[in-house]
Amino acid sequence: MNPVLAVGSVAFDTIKNPFGEAARVVGGSATYFSVAASFFTDVRLVAVVGDDFGDSGASLFEGRKIDLAGLQTVPGETFRWKGEYGFDLNTRETIYTKLNVFEGFQPVIPEGYRSSPFVFLGNIHPRLQLDVLDQVTAPRLVAADTMNFWIEGTPDELGEVLKRVDVLIINDEEARELSRESNLVKAARALRAMGPCTVVIKRGEHGVLMTCSNDGEFFAAPAMPLEDVFDPTGAGDTFAGGFVGSLAACGEVSDATLARAIIYGSTLASFAVEDFSLDRLLSLTQEEITERFRYFKRLTYFDES
Amino acid sequence: MNPVLAVGSVAFDTIKNPFGEAARVVGGSATYFSVAASFFTDVRLVAVVGDDFGDSGASLFEGRKIDLAGLQTVPGETFRWKGEYGFDLNTRETIYTKLNVFEGFQPVIPEGYRSSPFVFLGNIHPRLQLDVLDQVTAPRLVAADTMNFWIEGTPDELGEVLKRVDVLIINDEEARELSRESNLVKAARALRAMGPCTVVIKRGEHGVLMTCSNDGEFFAAPAMPLEDVFDPTGAGDTFAGGFVGSLAACGEVSDATLARAIIYGSTLASFAVEDFSLDRLLSLTQEEITERFRYFKRLTYFDES
Repeated sequence: MNPVLAVGSVAFDTIKNPFGEAARVVGGSATYFSVAASFFTDVRLVAVVGDDFGDSGASLFEGRKIDLAGLQTVPGETFRWKGEYGFDLNTRETIYTKLNVFEGFQPVIPEGYRSSPFVFLGNIHPRLQLDVLDQVTAPRLVAADTMNFWIEGTPDELGEVLKRVDVLIINDEEARELSRESNLVKAARALRAMGPCTVVIKRGEHGVLMTCSNDGEFFAAPAMPLEDVFDPTGAGDTFAGGFVGSLAACGEVSDATLARAIIYGSTLASFAVEDFSLDRLLSLTQEEITERFRYFKRLTYFDES
Repeated sequence: MNPVLAVGSVAFDTIKNPFGEAARVVGGSATYFSVAASFFTDVRLVAVVGDDFGDSGASLFEGRKIDLAGLQTVPGETFRWKGEYGFDLNTRETIYTKLNVFEGFQPVIPEGYRSSPFVFLGNIHPRLQLDVLDQVTAPRLVAADTMNFWIEGTPDELGEVLKRVDVLIINDEEARELSRESNLVKAARALRAMGPCTVVIKRGEHGVLMTCSNDGEFFAAPAMPLEDVFDPTGAGDTFAGGFVGSLAACGEVSDATLARAIIYGSTLASFAVEDFSLDRLLSLTQEEITERFRYFKRLTYFDES
């Protein structure tokens, strides 16, 4: 098994939506990513929490293939985020973002992690993403996420990151903003020209669009048709976890394995939104993943004759 | 070959978009449908035009497998529609709709058409759709389209139509309005409960969602990733033409053939938007259709191991 090194945020989330409220639950990009990826391979988590995180927070990772040697605990409060969703869950308002100890986060990659063959750079400051890349030794694949805050605030440093990543995982709005192209096909091509050989555009309820081949071919997957979406929080990071985790597990990186990874990512994300926070992922089984992966095959399959 | 009976509108369109204007070009739901379906099988067109339509209008159907014995010409002006698109083509304003001779349209199905095995009821008054169903004898498959105007204005008659059609082809907004369900999965199920065994929801640039099996399974197809969309006019009717036309050509109606028909419909629609009005469809070749159908296969294919 190829382990995955994941660097990002671990936070306490408070999520309010029409169905209720989950207060001070463990969240953060690296948390969702790691739990999702750990269904496929060993995960090495690098993040920072405050001394309020404690065993209760860490217990969430127990019994999973998630190594916490890189989880720094420092004096102070853990990153906190509160979001409130509109009635149809398509709009989300951030009530507050308290970086707390995350503000001074300096990712330190433990010696034993530096040769990790698969690396995921969660949505953190591009400078920190570069720091991580300077500490790892020739990873086979580097995937990165980002957001409008960095696209607008630190475009030059983000540009440096893009030159050094193999896979950019980004949502459609951010893809348009970063590429300055309103058409997603043009946006994907423009983003590839910035460095990443593979561009994965997350379109939420509309699925995923990926371009990887040099001949400009695309792979497209619909989202799982869900009757009830309960909580979209972390769906994007969960997708990334399933995507990178399944790629690492299979070890080979090709158009075919990237396409399959898109479906594993979509599968994990489709579960994540079924309950508050990480709840559904925490009760998820390998059998359920296999069953829904096969459902995706039936969902999109057609024969040619 | 199983012929398809198509009933709907033939019109003169004037289309304005950021790229230019096409004035008084032949359009209408039955026109787009028939031209698209004629790539797969014989089409029997039933519609009405005014005496201003003339040979120039009819010439568009020449050399295609489209029988015009059911195309009534009556004194007066042909149905006219003018639409103007916003800069991103996602918004469209109807400048005018002049029903003209279409206002008094009474579909008369020629004797030789009444046993047509495949029937498409274009987006016309539900009462006229019922008139057509009263004139045909035991078709193997009836597909119908409708729009918000009828959903709001003549819900009872539309309800009668739904009880008698096998396939409802509808766009996402209309599906939500007709079913009163904001979630498309629930909407599709609710629409099936109204009568049609198969519900095809057109999502524009987001592809197509279909439910046909009794076990509530879905088939989903992404839209073709296009760098340039030139004119979306008629894309929905073109999709329906490729869908019903390819189904009729293969003759068998099953989940598998319905899924393949979705891809043929998507293929035809993806060409239709590449140029003004019908222009791209008129220059389209069977080879181009086959090539793009195969592209759709590569676009969505992933293997399971």
